[in-house]
Amino acid sequence: MPLLVMKFGGTSVADLARIENAAKKVQAEVERGYDVIVIVSAMSGKTNELVGWVEQTSKLYDAREYDAVVASGENVTAGLMALRLQEMGVPARSWQGWQVPINTTSAHGSARFIDIPRDNIDAKFAEGFKVAVVAGFQGLSAEGRITTLGRGGSDTTAVAFAAAFGAERCDIYTDVDGVYTTDPRVSPKARKLDKIAFEEMLELASLGAKVLQTRSVELAMRYKVRLRVLSSFDDSENNGTLVCDEEEIMESKVVSGVAFSRDEAKMTLVSVEDRPGVASAIFGPLAEAGVNVDMIVQNISEKNYGTHTGAVTDMTFSVPVNQVARAQKAMKDALDAGIVKYDELLTDTDVAKVSVVGIGMRSQVGVAAKMFAALAAENVNIKVIATSEIKISVLIDRKYMELAVQALHDAFELEKA
Amino acid sequence: MPLLVMKFGGTSVADLARIENAAKKVQAEVERGYDVIVIVSAMSGKTNELVGWVEQTSKLYDAREYDAVVASGENVTAGLMALRLQEMGVPARSWQGWQVPINTTSAHGSARFIDIPRDNIDAKFAEGFKVAVVAGFQGLSAEGRITTLGRGGSDTTAVAFAAAFGAERCDIYTDVDGVYTTDPRVSPKARKLDKIAFEEMLELASLGAKVLQTRSVELAMRYKVRLRVLSSFDDSENNGTLVCDEEEIMESKVVSGVAFSRDEAKMTLVSVEDRPGVASAIFGPLAEAGVNVDMIVQNISEKNYGTHTGAVTDMTFSVPVNQVARAQKAMKDALDAGIVKYDELLTDTDVAKVSVVGIGMRSQVGVAAKMFAALAAENVNIKVIATSEIKISVLIDRKYMELAVQALHDAFELEKA
Repeated sequence: MPLLVMKFGGTSVADLARIENAAKKVQAEVERGYDVIVIVSAMSGKTNELVGWVEQTSKLYDAREYDAVVASGENVTAGLMALRLQEMGVPARSWQGWQVPINTTSAHGSARFIDIPRDNIDAKFAEGFKVAVVAGFQGLSAEGRITTLGRGGSDTTAVAFAAAFGAERCDIYTDVDGVYTTDPRVSPKARKLDKIAFEEMLELASLGAKVLQTRSVELAMRYKVRLRVLSSFDDSENNGTLVCDEEEIMESKVVSGVAFSRDEAKMTLVSVEDRPGVASAIFGPLAEAGVNVDMIVQNISEKNYGTHTGAVTDMTFSVPVNQVARAQKAMKDALDAGIVKYDELLTDTDVAKVSVVGIGMRSQVGVAAKMFAALAAENVNIKVIATSEIKISVLIDRKYMELAVQALHDAFELEKA
Repeated sequence: MPLLVMKFGGTSVADLARIENAAKKVQAEVERGYDVIVIVSAMSGKTNELVGWVEQTSKLYDAREYDAVVASGENVTAGLMALRLQEMGVPARSWQGWQVPINTTSAHGSARFIDIPRDNIDAKFAEGFKVAVVAGFQGLSAEGRITTLGRGGSDTTAVAFAAAFGAERCDIYTDVDGVYTTDPRVSPKARKLDKIAFEEMLELASLGAKVLQTRSVELAMRYKVRLRVLSSFDDSENNGTLVCDEEEIMESKVVSGVAFSRDEAKMTLVSVEDRPGVASAIFGPLAEAGVNVDMIVQNISEKNYGTHTGAVTDMTFSVPVNQVARAQKAMKDALDAGIVKYDELLTDTDVAKVSVVGIGMRSQVGVAAKMFAALAAENVNIKVIATSEIKISVLIDRKYMELAVQALHDAFELEKA
């Protein structure tokens, strides 16, 4: 029997009417001949309520107890969804993480999958059940405690089940109808993509397009799970974007989308000694302090100046804006400890990152030139540039962000299918 | 290490402030040197919310899914209570039914205990944990599904743990401060009892004194678990009633309390054949229909009349008022099937049951005479009388119920300690 995984997020199961709406979508797939594994989130608002109670009860809470409390939200939805399906005549059974079992590490609050044995659920399918409704976002540690995977973990659960059960597809139902060339709130010309490659989705997700969690896309790419993102509230044929292997995308444009992030800060260490090992002397302490460094640019200076006698350089990097204080402390400590020498640490929190993403870049030249020309035509000054195989990112003044996104969307003609 | 079981009902853990209040009571026992097993109910209102969702989702709901949904309420409280205790510096760990495991039958919604292995919780006590917070009202079936014990099952869970772990005492924290000689809302002279025997409590519980669930008292009596009922909201020395073996009660009064129930109906089968086997021909079908027959009185008639040629009798019995329709149908069916013959079935739903209860009755005569005299003095007509070793019950017109309770409370001088 072919098998589908269908995942419904919090807004898709926010109340009993929406659970019924979701159940109808499951029933439709069963009627098409699929066995279905449904992954559910907590009814929207419930997880926040539970988290609020935990945080009010204990500031430095025990993550084992946090997980035990918070995971209960998904259990409720799983039971209600199974009941609704039964009411519609679809044989369904709910599954909590420990019943499957979804074996995870013991890293409470951010556990990772170890394995998902198929035996228990397969046995129920063999008995005639058509649907297994699984509580998302949770698992079981080797110590027999409930774990959670962290926010967004329900998407990852869905992909992991799709991989474990060899699903034909993993449908992620949410409140948007797919992946867009850019955020429609920034560019009214934004267009929904019918298909997008895993790699592109990964760049878009990590760059701030909040449709799918990065980890779930990584997992889907590794196990070649075809992911479809679609809206629970749209019954049109055109609903959804398929995230798939690039081989499935017949003719791809050079650039698929324009991503952006407002939460960036640019930091520059002025007059760092230019010697082997200096990069690790800087980024080692930052990594230890838990700072996520994104872009890194080193400008080699030609002249010697400041307190240094040898060759010097400026080192510029970007970090999430809420990690600036931590990064400043790490650099100050490294300076005091004599690990690194620099004259000054400049911080600019008034920047934004804009990126163009597309697997077509691999085979096509001139993308960067076109991007820089489009920005220059709007007088947008580029502060930092970073590139990967399938994306080009620039750091610019935050006030130009919307302008830059629109200019790039136009330049690459993303409004055209 | 001596061990206590402490159980907190829904109103005692209704919100975070009340959970903290309950946790302080647990902490005080830990400081007195006890290991403690805490049994918690769902925060009040939560179970009703979950049951409401289930019933709205599916009218003829699957009890397995009902249990999976409804048990989540207790899980939340267990985690929050463990967190609160940790915050106070008390090493605590939460336990869901399947983690202990609390092994039960597969009778979903009304499961019964099979066993509660001590190993897992004992291992945690040995590691230095002082408190195990267990989600009440739930268990695990042999099929690996979550079961519930039915309403009031948290009391039963507490007693079962006290028995399994050899607890010194099982404290049931609720919103009343103990067991009274009668309901204070009916008789202002009602007095709280310091101690009461299991058998008396059992009669009072089954007669409508809603302090403790019958099943939990039965279990306590069988395993000789000393039960204390007390208020979460009373810090006085005088708080609580101990339910214990009668040997612990030095000098007991003849009558301990006056119980009553409004939810009674009196049914009379007129002119039943008076022959061997007729009782089972009546009460067999009633039992099969799930009717809980309480009092039974048979009046032998001296004359033959009606459609019967042999000796006839009237058979009177009482049933809960909400089972009258079911009882009527069962009797009609039995008549149509020729199982039993009678002329008429009379139903009186306007009655109440009043009972006096006391283990002292065993050794003392004249209790019934005193009871009937007290009722006669108030012109209360007695419709049915039933007696057991430690109680005498009468069925009377409902309008006299409060009067009868007060008259009996006075007659047996229950206001005096």
